[in-house]
Amino acid sequence: MHAVRALLLRHAARVSSLTVAEGRELRIAEIQTLAQKAGKPVKRVAAATFKQLFGDAVHQGVYVEVTPLPPWHEEELVAGIAAQLEARAAPFVLVLDGVQDPHNLGACLRTADACGALAVVIPKDRAAQMNATVRKVAAGAAETTPLAVVTNLARTLRLLKEAGLWIVGADAEASQLAHEADLAGPIALVMGAEGAGLRQLTRDTCDFLVRLPQAGTVESLNVSVATGMLLYEAMRQRVSRSSAR
Amino acid sequence: MHAVRALLLRHAARVSSLTVAEGRELRIAEIQTLAQKAGKPVKRVAAATFKQLFGDAVHQGVYVEVTPLPPWHEEELVAGIAAQLEARAAPFVLVLDGVQDPHNLGACLRTADACGALAVVIPKDRAAQMNATVRKVAAGAAETTPLAVVTNLARTLRLLKEAGLWIVGADAEASQLAHEADLAGPIALVMGAEGAGLRQLTRDTCDFLVRLPQAGTVESLNVSVATGMLLYEAMRQRVSRSSAR
Repeated sequence: MHAVRALLLRHAARVSSLTVAEGRELRIAEIQTLAQKAGKPVKRVAAATFKQLFGDAVHQGVYVEVTPLPPWHEEELVAGIAAQLEARAAPFVLVLDGVQDPHNLGACLRTADACGALAVVIPKDRAAQMNATVRKVAAGAAETTPLAVVTNLARTLRLLKEAGLWIVGADAEASQLAHEADLAGPIALVMGAEGAGLRQLTRDTCDFLVRLPQAGTVESLNVSVATGMLLYEAMRQRVSRSSAR
Repeated sequence: MHAVRALLLRHAARVSSLTVAEGRELRIAEIQTLAQKAGKPVKRVAAATFKQLFGDAVHQGVYVEVTPLPPWHEEELVAGIAAQLEARAAPFVLVLDGVQDPHNLGACLRTADACGALAVVIPKDRAAQMNATVRKVAAGAAETTPLAVVTNLARTLRLLKEAGLWIVGADAEASQLAHEADLAGPIALVMGAEGAGLRQLTRDTCDFLVRLPQAGTVESLNVSVATGMLLYEAMRQRVSRSSAR
């Protein structure tokens, strides 16, 4: 429901039609209203027909036909950053340096989307890529937050730096705690792979490194949870700063 | 490796023996030293034998025979809180009000463990219970952080209150942001179920409610990521407070 709502509100141009299962009137009333406002056709079918059409996948009685979000390249990243800086917003980009598990990629996409990230950047090689599992775990975020797949991550990080972002790496050995660093400005947050952490070349490209305060080590946290904690810290600083103005 | 290390360091009494696969000498050297210090026998077997013994489960070449952590009840919770308060620590307990997905329960256990939670509390009915999936996703945390399964969650919350904890509920409609509330003291953090949030009775039992600052809604975050964000906020406040002393 959340994903469908987000699509109709923020990306209606990419929605072509909706199909809803009968018998879920209460829960889908809002979706139907949004679809009508956006001028999108809604087809009502019996619950059994819905199941026949779309199989046994977990759903909430709504199917949306949507044009996939085209993958981003370096040009779109740079243009997106420029547009946000021009609008006096502080863009932030999430960079995953070789995350292997599609569940983790999907979970990071979902969190990045909820936190308003401009895009998520992943390397083309030796990393989980967009697939059906990622889309499912992302719970709709794959249709709303662009994924940029790049061939040379260090080069892309330098490009993001030139575009005006601070490159912040998450590292268990960092001397600085996340809340002691300035994460309220335009940043790219770089997370390492499960267990392995940041690669040396990536670490060297960062402007500064931060760590999480905790009893254990960063490796003891799932990468999607550690990403959530650091995105939260960035949001907290942004909220605190704007309320202090 | 992390789980094995934690078991040997913190719960050696429950470890009876270890089996390691040959050919992983570098990575298991530390584990072997810890096992020797704890006086635990280590059996070395060929990689092929290891696979025969323990199957194709994902592992890092180490098998540990461990007495399961006994489930906690209200008495152990109350005693644990009293012991930490006596030691002038600020205990915190994670309460999951009806989380349905074993993956989410496992992920919450893992994060709670990494953040040093005293225990995780779940209701006996209409909620995911401890099973093999939970143990696997928890990555060892199920063997180190106690799980308390209770029949009446509201009664347990009142008990935790009497034991000296503040009951903090996570709620998207809360007027207060998490970082505006005091989470550095002794607290029980109560998270709602996926999608549904806190039940009314649970909400009424809370001392105060907090929400996360974000572009979307709490429902747009996975419950294990939202839990991670709030546990991070509690840790941040504890670290800031102790460094300010």
